[in-house]
Amino acid sequence: MTTLPGKVAIREVALRDGLQIEKPIPLSAKLELLAAIAATGVREVEVTSFVSPTKVPALADAAELAAELWRYPAIEFSALVASPGGAARAVAAGLRSIEYVVCASDSFSEANVGRSTADATAAIADITAIAHDAGASIEVIIATAWDCPFDGPTPPRRVTDIAESATGFGVDRLAIADTIGTTTPRRVTDLIAAVRPIIGDIPLGAHFHNTRGSGLASAYAAVSAGVTRLDASAGGLGGCPFAPGATGNIATEDLAYLLGDCGIDTGIDLDAAIAAAGVASSVVGHGLPSALLAAGDRRRD
Amino acid sequence: MTTLPGKVAIREVALRDGLQIEKPIPLSAKLELLAAIAATGVREVEVTSFVSPTKVPALADAAELAAELWRYPAIEFSALVASPGGAARAVAAGLRSIEYVVCASDSFSEANVGRSTADATAAIADITAIAHDAGASIEVIIATAWDCPFDGPTPPRRVTDIAESATGFGVDRLAIADTIGTTTPRRVTDLIAAVRPIIGDIPLGAHFHNTRGSGLASAYAAVSAGVTRLDASAGGLGGCPFAPGATGNIATEDLAYLLGDCGIDTGIDLDAAIAAAGVASSVVGHGLPSALLAAGDRRRD
Repeated sequence: MTTLPGKVAIREVALRDGLQIEKPIPLSAKLELLAAIAATGVREVEVTSFVSPTKVPALADAAELAAELWRYPAIEFSALVASPGGAARAVAAGLRSIEYVVCASDSFSEANVGRSTADATAAIADITAIAHDAGASIEVIIATAWDCPFDGPTPPRRVTDIAESATGFGVDRLAIADTIGTTTPRRVTDLIAAVRPIIGDIPLGAHFHNTRGSGLASAYAAVSAGVTRLDASAGGLGGCPFAPGATGNIATEDLAYLLGDCGIDTGIDLDAAIAAAGVASSVVGHGLPSALLAAGDRRRD
Repeated sequence: MTTLPGKVAIREVALRDGLQIEKPIPLSAKLELLAAIAATGVREVEVTSFVSPTKVPALADAAELAAELWRYPAIEFSALVASPGGAARAVAAGLRSIEYVVCASDSFSEANVGRSTADATAAIADITAIAHDAGASIEVIIATAWDCPFDGPTPPRRVTDIAESATGFGVDRLAIADTIGTTTPRRVTDLIAAVRPIIGDIPLGAHFHNTRGSGLASAYAAVSAGVTRLDASAGGLGGCPFAPGATGNIATEDLAYLLGDCGIDTGIDLDAAIAAAGVASSVVGHGLPSALLAAGDRRRD
């Protein structure tokens, strides 16, 4: 019998991973979405990225948004970066939690950030120093951890090598990401079993997309394997600009429903989360794939 | 470490559970969908129900459809019934596999078939006799096995009582159904653990809806608990006329993708299954929630 954890921390990523491939929306709309997200009780929010504004115009207002975050002292805000320069801008803007993505497949890494996996891994040292010098924490997110749209299945060794390097560089947290939404429970279990022994006591998170419908099944497999940190996005907003066909992070409210129904505390209020999904849909001006947004909580039947 | 089965049998239910709340479509459209389904390699198809044509007008052509099934000798076709009279009509129409639904909650049973769970359970005896006298097999599907839209959570004892009675009456197969799409992996695991010891060697199947996004996670939990028979619907077509807000069986192609990626053989050809989902969408004239229908197999990235 699997022993489930009593608590799982959900990190809300709608404002970053959710919005990055959308048409840019005004700062005021982001603040409206942030207010709805804050009302759910979530304690961690990936709020923006400090990357090239020409590559990701939807997040070009990162510094302006960062200036508003003091309104929510109970939330730990993080920002994603792709380079030491981005990390420096993030900490200068006041962020105290930095995420740095390393793509486990070379082709995706080249397409995403214009350098190889090895070069991106080497940069962990500088980025960790910038974060730590500013009193910020640093998390390395290993992208295309299971599959790459160009290279096919990612050999687990490429993931464990990055994890080992990141651990050596002294990062504070690690996460493995199913960037294109193709993995399934068995491979999730296997990769966690491969990564976990390498990284000592470093907290391990996981990030899933629901592109092939398996996102929540994979998330549950991760939790069953001991992962207690999961990313999710209000309404299932999101995708990846470099992964053709990829649509939709797992939806925060659907994940919170599943985990809550399994007796796992996420701290998320479901009604507020469904409301936040509605706001997410409203600010982007289109429908979202969230199941609970369509069907409601089971109490509403 | 969970030991996964090497094979799982998927029963395709688009033609019955999928179509029953749709506007009636012509027999020719059903035959078009059936041809597409047959091309997927699936070996079991729930093809219609023999119930009141005024309550379920979309399936009023059950006998006419049954007359066409000789075209697919490799497929085991089943039909759902709600009474001994329905069972008699099904076997008279040539069906050799009958499914009889017993709702585990009284309120749902009353709403669905106008009688209590106890009365519906007692009728298993007559229906089993009708099936067996005709050389047909009989499966009892226990509906609202986890939750009822009217009565709330279903006490597991109500499910195990039906399972025990059905076993005593000599049924050939049993299944537990999440009729309104509210269950999640932990409760799936628990209910299977409660039912399995009671029913001896009788094969146990499971039926999930994806109404709250948890359908595939629940299906994987069932498989991890030893269930090797799962219902699914092309494109995720389906719902339940008596469960407000309920939409969508788990999609055959999404389930086949997940199981196949976990190394489990379903015998389903993914390309053909995605094509069948497209036909399902076409014959009903609206979009369907299938993930693979939108994103494609991962080979297409």
